[in-house]
Amino acid sequence: MKLLMDRIRQDGRVIGHEILKVDSFLNHQLDPQLIQAIGREFAGRFAGLGVTKILTIEASGIAVALMAGLEMGVPVLFAKKRRARTQSEAVYAAPVTSYTRGETVEVYVSQRYISPDDTVLILDDFLAMGEATSGLIALVRQAGARLAGVGIVVEKGFQEGGRRLRAQGVNLQSLVVIEALGADGIRFAEPQVAQA
Amino acid sequence: MKLLMDRIRQDGRVIGHEILKVDSFLNHQLDPQLIQAIGREFAGRFAGLGVTKILTIEASGIAVALMAGLEMGVPVLFAKKRRARTQSEAVYAAPVTSYTRGETVEVYVSQRYISPDDTVLILDDFLAMGEATSGLIALVRQAGARLAGVGIVVEKGFQEGGRRLRAQGVNLQSLVVIEALGADGIRFAEPQVAQA
Repeated sequence: MKLLMDRIRQDGRVIGHEILKVDSFLNHQLDPQLIQAIGREFAGRFAGLGVTKILTIEASGIAVALMAGLEMGVPVLFAKKRRARTQSEAVYAAPVTSYTRGETVEVYVSQRYISPDDTVLILDDFLAMGEATSGLIALVRQAGARLAGVGIVVEKGFQEGGRRLRAQGVNLQSLVVIEALGADGIRFAEPQVAQA
Repeated sequence: MKLLMDRIRQDGRVIGHEILKVDSFLNHQLDPQLIQAIGREFAGRFAGLGVTKILTIEASGIAVALMAGLEMGVPVLFAKKRRARTQSEAVYAAPVTSYTRGETVEVYVSQRYISPDDTVLILDDFLAMGEATSGLIALVRQAGARLAGVGIVVEKGFQEGGRRLRAQGVNLQSLVVIEALGADGIRFAEPQVAQA
């Protein structure tokens, strides 16, 4: 997605060889017009698959998921994170380890909002090791719903998540894939074929 | 806002005398069309005030803030919550106590994204004791920015937050105000005058 690549080149900040900060437009400050364009791109890439619901995870997945949901005309469900079991209602839950934060949290959704009749599209802002995405896929499986695919705004191609998910046969669409980060800037992978 | 009142009557769930669950359309599952209508309503209510930035708090404020930002053509900034000081960048920060959760967290934004030149509109999904809103107002003051007003989707009129903020002269606009919750349902306050 050229618009997004240009914006990352312009406003992304590279820290070391692993961190790309996009907090001026994607995950702290949000550029609504750009996020609307991202939502439309996802809607196009996952059209015709019978998606009935979009699933994401708080907090930074909510914006892109909402815009895609608006475009596709389907509700958006965001998984919550918690450290302890406090919710009284029946939930689907899965553990997610964050390598950056060095902690494991549980992600969960109310059982009210996913059913075996659903065809779910998972959307998130970043894919690195794939832990959050795998947690969301576990929720879809627990609910007995169908997984239409996974859409990611920025995939770190130099980490394992994307490879693992594709090896499992997941229909993974990343709008941009980063091959390397460093003092000389950001190297993007060639654009993916639309239906890989 | 009649559309919202009707939706709360239809899908809101009342638990005891204090809790209104709207997680089927506002803060767990999201109805993108409804949230777009809410964003437009806020854009109308705060038009002409020179708003340059919308500030909200993760996670459930993000959706309405994003839609308002799209309508108003301004960026959206969401404050993050944390238990410990880990962020390396310069931030504005304020403590926020959650009475429902019985804990105090720090909310913060990067100093990069609010400046004395900004006129900030604060948006959030719920207003009860007003703790989160007061924390966000503190961030705006720390940055030396101007506060255009506060927009709230659902104000619990039987708790103190709204009264306190209005007594401070804050331009507070709540789309619906709930006077009472109970076994006999939800009692709404009369619609507010648009520019109170």
